Amino acid sequence: MAVSIEKETPIAERPDSFLTAYDKATGGISSGSSSVRARFEKMIRDAQDSVCDAIEKADGAGNFKEDVWSRPGGGGGISRVLQDGAVWEKAGVNVSVVYGIMPPDAYRAAKASAAHQKPGEIPFFAAGISSVLHPKNPFAPTLHFNYRYFETDAPKDAPGAPRQWWFGGGTDLTPSYIFEEDVKHFHSEQKKACDKFDPSFYPRFKKWCDDYFYIKHRNERRGLGGIFFDDLNDYDQEMLLSFATECANSVIPAYIPIIERRKDTPFTEQHKAWQQLRRGRYVEFNLVYDRGTTFGLKTGGRIESILVSLPLTARWEYDHKPEEGSEEWKLLDACINPREWI
Amino acid sequence: MAVSIEKETPIAERPDSFLTAYDKATGGISSGSSSVRARFEKMIRDAQDSVCDAIEKADGAGNFKEDVWSRPGGGGGISRVLQDGAVWEKAGVNVSVVYGIMPPDAYRAAKASAAHQKPGEIPFFAAGISSVLHPKNPFAPTLHFNYRYFETDAPKDAPGAPRQWWFGGGTDLTPSYIFEEDVKHFHSEQKKACDKFDPSFYPRFKKWCDDYFYIKHRNERRGLGGIFFDDLNDYDQEMLLSFATECANSVIPAYIPIIERRKDTPFTEQHKAWQQLRRGRYVEFNLVYDRGTTFGLKTGGRIESILVSLPLTARWEYDHKPEEGSEEWKLLDACINPREWI
Repeated sequence: MAVSIEKETPIAERPDSFLTAYDKATGGISSGSSSVRARFEKMIRDAQDSVCDAIEKADGAGNFKEDVWSRPGGGGGISRVLQDGAVWEKAGVNVSVVYGIMPPDAYRAAKASAAHQKPGEIPFFAAGISSVLHPKNPFAPTLHFNYRYFETDAPKDAPGAPRQWWFGGGTDLTPSYIFEEDVKHFHSEQKKACDKFDPSFYPRFKKWCDDYFYIKHRNERRGLGGIFFDDLNDYDQEMLLSFATECANSVIPAYIPIIERRKDTPFTEQHKAWQQLRRGRYVEFNLVYDRGTTFGLKTGGRIESILVSLPLTARWEYDHKPEEGSEEWKLLDACINPREWI
Repeated sequence: MAVSIEKETPIAERPDSFLTAYDKATGGISSGSSSVRARFEKMIRDAQDSVCDAIEKADGAGNFKEDVWSRPGGGGGISRVLQDGAVWEKAGVNVSVVYGIMPPDAYRAAKASAAHQKPGEIPFFAAGISSVLHPKNPFAPTLHFNYRYFETDAPKDAPGAPRQWWFGGGTDLTPSYIFEEDVKHFHSEQKKACDKFDPSFYPRFKKWCDDYFYIKHRNERRGLGGIFFDDLNDYDQEMLLSFATECANSVIPAYIPIIERRKDTPFTEQHKAWQQLRRGRYVEFNLVYDRGTTFGLKTGGRIESILVSLPLTARWEYDHKPEEGSEEWKLLDACINPREWI
């Protein structure tokens, strides 16, 4: 079914903010610099800068290529991709800040709990940072993080309905081989960020992550998890903005030390082939289940930005089963039976 | 959402027919050797044998590995995979003959025109042959074919409703580079099979194929088409059984001569990288759009049989655009703008 948002067009220069035209487009809601929208945009753009800087520094050879685009309907984005570096084979860090009228199908795809609602057309605002970092070395893990903020106005056919806002996001680690100290370090950093806000956050969002990154047809998870939350609006809005900021700022300390330890570890063709098989699972999850991806495909978003999450290379062998007790088997076992790492 | 058919189990020996238990399971409908069900099963099993023989002969090195499985609910299948041969990196030829009670979601996935119906539980019979053949040489095309036959009984909550049957299938070619003589030969063989039955078949099913193998989010087709039809029941049942048989028998003469011409063509790393990018598109189509695949994933079918269609290796580069006028560009252009080949 065709559910299409107008096509994005490349633009030559990064604007200071994608919100400039927002007030005019939506009529009445203020987007002053103190609004949550404006501060969220600033946060994700700062995070994009600092993560890209840290990746380039750790890579030592590759540089991010930047594409800036705008949507005639409202807003735009900045896609940055580093390809074929020394450490990463593909690293994408995208921000987008878009608004307009959301087709009902897109609304249901965007909001998990609305899957069975049938709303009319809804004015929306959506901003997010999304990143997938695929290293070359099979002992160095893939990292994904994504933090996003949504607002909807009242549906046009129900003008009295309340406005809504919600936060979503998470950071998760996908190694091909388990190094306990790496996984513990990663999860500890997630817990540290969570614990600054609410002691229930880490256990709750850790489980949510294990549940979300589930490849149902394989009965296994994509990786070793981290944190994930969605449709979050039952806390103070300012608190959740600070929490999302803290999570985004935790990406570098959680990930870069692991990369430094593993990027030069010698490996064999067999190690590489196993990494490629796990990359195949990554592709399966993203194309079949991931809400961000399916949302993007449905709404006709910028395909290259959406699918930059896919690895440079992947592999599918028929009926591959790692030998019981092997390092490959241990990884698979942890994907089938999620563990507590701290 | 959990829509699960009972898990298949491996069995040691190929049965002469998977239909033996059918009458008992469904009560009353005869599956004697003259039934369409029984003859369709024989046809697809003969086709599996002859295609596998032809592939092994052309490959010269690889052999098919066979897995036989049965479903406690009824029926089973034979999966054959040749991996890492001399000519093919992955070749899968599967037959399945299954029956039981179909969950409503699965029924909607199986029958395109039923997408918006909400039937109750439906007794069904489904048999098919499905094959994807991925060669190593980037100048040798991938082939896919699939022929299937469905029957449903009246839904349990509407005992008076009519029984239904329909045929579906097709054969299509996915090269990474265009050799006009190959594509013409392939389409001519499809037309020849069609013309034996109805002069309207080839033009109609050629267009249906172009429409079906459409990667909407890329605005391009997976390959250079062939024939495709689905939900076909508005012709004589015997005629359609003969037609499906003719199509299945056309696979070898349509494909093997092309492979013989291209399997040893020298190629560069750049040719291989382009083939890998096109394989990425193959993965995108199969996981996001293909009805057989999404049907299989929803119903908890045998995952290794379903995903054997995925290539051994695939590649995704950010924002790759072939140079205008290049051989790669010509292929892409033909995937964007389907052509008449004969």
